[in-house]
Amino acid sequence: MPNTTFSLHSPLDMHIHFREGAMLRRVAPLSAETFAGGVIMPNLVPPVDNQVRLDRYDREVREVVEPLAFEPYMTLFMRPYTESELASMKDRIIGVKLYPEGVTTHSEQGVGDLGDVEDTLDLMQDLGIRLMVHGESTDFVMDRERAFLPVYENLARRFPRLHIVMEHITTREAAALLDRHENLSATVTLQHLLITLDDVAGGLLNPHLFCKPIAKRPEDRDALLALALDAHPGLVFGSDSAPHPVDKKECAGCAAGVFTAPIALQMLVGLFEEHGALDRLQAFVSDNAKRIYDVDPPAKTVVFAKTGAAIPERYGDVVPMYAGRDLEWKVAEVR
Amino acid sequence: MPNTTFSLHSPLDMHIHFREGAMLRRVAPLSAETFAGGVIMPNLVPPVDNQVRLDRYDREVREVVEPLAFEPYMTLFMRPYTESELASMKDRIIGVKLYPEGVTTHSEQGVGDLGDVEDTLDLMQDLGIRLMVHGESTDFVMDRERAFLPVYENLARRFPRLHIVMEHITTREAAALLDRHENLSATVTLQHLLITLDDVAGGLLNPHLFCKPIAKRPEDRDALLALALDAHPGLVFGSDSAPHPVDKKECAGCAAGVFTAPIALQMLVGLFEEHGALDRLQAFVSDNAKRIYDVDPPAKTVVFAKTGAAIPERYGDVVPMYAGRDLEWKVAEVR
Repeated sequence: MPNTTFSLHSPLDMHIHFREGAMLRRVAPLSAETFAGGVIMPNLVPPVDNQVRLDRYDREVREVVEPLAFEPYMTLFMRPYTESELASMKDRIIGVKLYPEGVTTHSEQGVGDLGDVEDTLDLMQDLGIRLMVHGESTDFVMDRERAFLPVYENLARRFPRLHIVMEHITTREAAALLDRHENLSATVTLQHLLITLDDVAGGLLNPHLFCKPIAKRPEDRDALLALALDAHPGLVFGSDSAPHPVDKKECAGCAAGVFTAPIALQMLVGLFEEHGALDRLQAFVSDNAKRIYDVDPPAKTVVFAKTGAAIPERYGDVVPMYAGRDLEWKVAEVR
Repeated sequence: MPNTTFSLHSPLDMHIHFREGAMLRRVAPLSAETFAGGVIMPNLVPPVDNQVRLDRYDREVREVVEPLAFEPYMTLFMRPYTESELASMKDRIIGVKLYPEGVTTHSEQGVGDLGDVEDTLDLMQDLGIRLMVHGESTDFVMDRERAFLPVYENLARRFPRLHIVMEHITTREAAALLDRHENLSATVTLQHLLITLDDVAGGLLNPHLFCKPIAKRPEDRDALLALALDAHPGLVFGSDSAPHPVDKKECAGCAAGVFTAPIALQMLVGLFEEHGALDRLQAFVSDNAKRIYDVDPPAKTVVFAKTGAAIPERYGDVVPMYAGRDLEWKVAEVR
C-alpha cells in the first residue's frame, strides 16, 4: 500500500522574498500557511540596512504572518556596519546578506569590493552574526557560481568562526564545498532540484523558470538532488521564492525569480517519495535548519494527502512554477 | 577621415524564414529591399516537401518579392524522396533542408533516424543537390551542436561529392570543421556574431534574443566573429531571421527566433567597420555565397551612409533584434 498521508513538523524556508506592501500581503500568507518560519531577504528598495528600516520591515512582516504562527527570521543587507550598529541589531536578525554588486534583483547597492566589508566581517565573527551570500561573480552566466567558489573558500578560511551560508547553490562544485569547510552551509531551492537550463531555454523559452543563479547542467541538478535526498547535514531548504507580477515576467526584459512558496512543500513530498527518501524530508526542510541556525520555530504540523490537486495558474498577478500542472500531494491539514 | 558611405553589391542572405500569407507579405519585402537573393526555408506547416507545395510556395514568394529584384532560392524539407521526385524538382531548389526531429520550430515532421534518408542522400549526391542541415541533437541545450558534429563529419566522409551546409553554426568546434572537410560549408547569423547566452539570460531574460541553436559562450562567439571578419571562404551570411508575432515571444512559452532581416546589413557594416574589416564584408555577404552555391543573383548595389538611425520598435507585430537601439549606418540608396 502506498502512503496516502504524510506529515511534516515545523517546515522552514531558509531563503524567501516577501517584498513589501501589496505584494507582501499577497505572498507572505501563502508561505506562513504551511511553513513555521523563514529567512526573509533584505533586498528591498531601499535595502534593509539600518535599525529604522529593519524595525519597520519586521513589523510589517509580522503583522501579515503572525496570525499563522510563522516566525520571520529577518536579515540585513550587507554594507560596512559599525560595531554599535551590529550590536544593537544582532538579536533581531538571523544574519547579514551579502550581494555582490549587480548580480541579481535590487543588488545595485551591493558590495563591489569585499575589502570594503572586511572589518564588518570581523565584527560579525566576534559577535556571532551569520553571513549569507549570493555567491555569483559577473562572469559568463553559466560560470558565475563556479567563479565565486574561491571567494567562499577564502572567507571560510579567513573567518573560521563565522557561519557562512552559500545561498541557493546550483552547481555540483558548490555542493562539494559542504564537505570541505566546517563553517560553510548551503540552501538549495526547489527548482534547482528539478530543472536544468533545458527547462528554461531548451524548448520554448520559459520566463517562469528563469532565476538567478540560472539553472545549470543535468549533472549539477543531479548532484544537488542527491544531497537533498540524503538530507546532507550542511544543506537546508530555501525556496528563494521570488514573486514578480506577470507583466514583469512575460515581457521583453523578464525579471529573475521563480515563485514556489505555495507549492514547494507539496512538490518536495512528491519528489522525495518518488526517490524513496520521504524519511529524510523532515531533516531537509526543518531539522537541519533548526540545528544549523539554532532556531526554535513555532510548532506546526502539516499533513499532506495523496489525493491530487492542480497548481493554480495565478496567485493574484503572480504565476507560480509549473502553473496548471497536476500535483500528486496536497495540504490536507495544518495544526 | 572616416568612411561616410559604403557600398555592397548583391548581398545575399543564405538562410531566411519568410513564412506564408500575411507574415510573408510583411517580412519578405524587408529582406528583398536590400538583399539580392536569399535561401528560403521550407519548415512551414505542412512542410514544403512535394511538387505542389513547392510550386505554390515559390509562386507566393515570387509575387511578393519580384518587384524588388530579389531571387528566392527555394528549398525542400527533407524526407525520403524518390529519384523521379528529386529529378523533377532539382532545378527549382537550391537544396534540401534536413531537420532532426523535434529540434526547432515546426520540426515535428523532421528526420528521426538518418538511416531513413540514406538512399535520398545517395540520390542527392548523384544529382548534385545540396544538403542543408539544422545540426543539433536533443542533448542538453548548450551541447546540442557539439553533439551533432560527428554526424556532420560522417556525412561529409560518407558522401564526399555532396555539398553539405552546416546551418547557423554557433560553436568554435563547428567553425573548426570548415577546415577539415572540403564538402562542408556553413552559414552564420548576425546574432551569433554579436551575442552570447549572457545577452539572452545573463541580465534580464530577453526573449527577442532567444533562438535555436541558442547563443553560446564568449569563446564561441569570438571564434565565429573571427571567421566572419576574415571572410573565411567556407562561411557565408545567413541571418536565420525568423519572425514571430510579439505575443508568441513575450509570453509564458516563447518561440525561438530572432528577427534581423531589415537591420542585418546595416549592423554588419557597423560591426565590420568597428573591427577594421569592411574590405571583407562583400565576400562574407555575397561573393563567398555566389562561389559556394554557384548562384548569380540580380545586380543590386546598396549604399550605406554613416548618418545614424534608430532600429524600429516593431515591424507590424514583430519585434526586431535590438529594437529601439541606435544604428550607426543606414541604407541611403538601393540601385
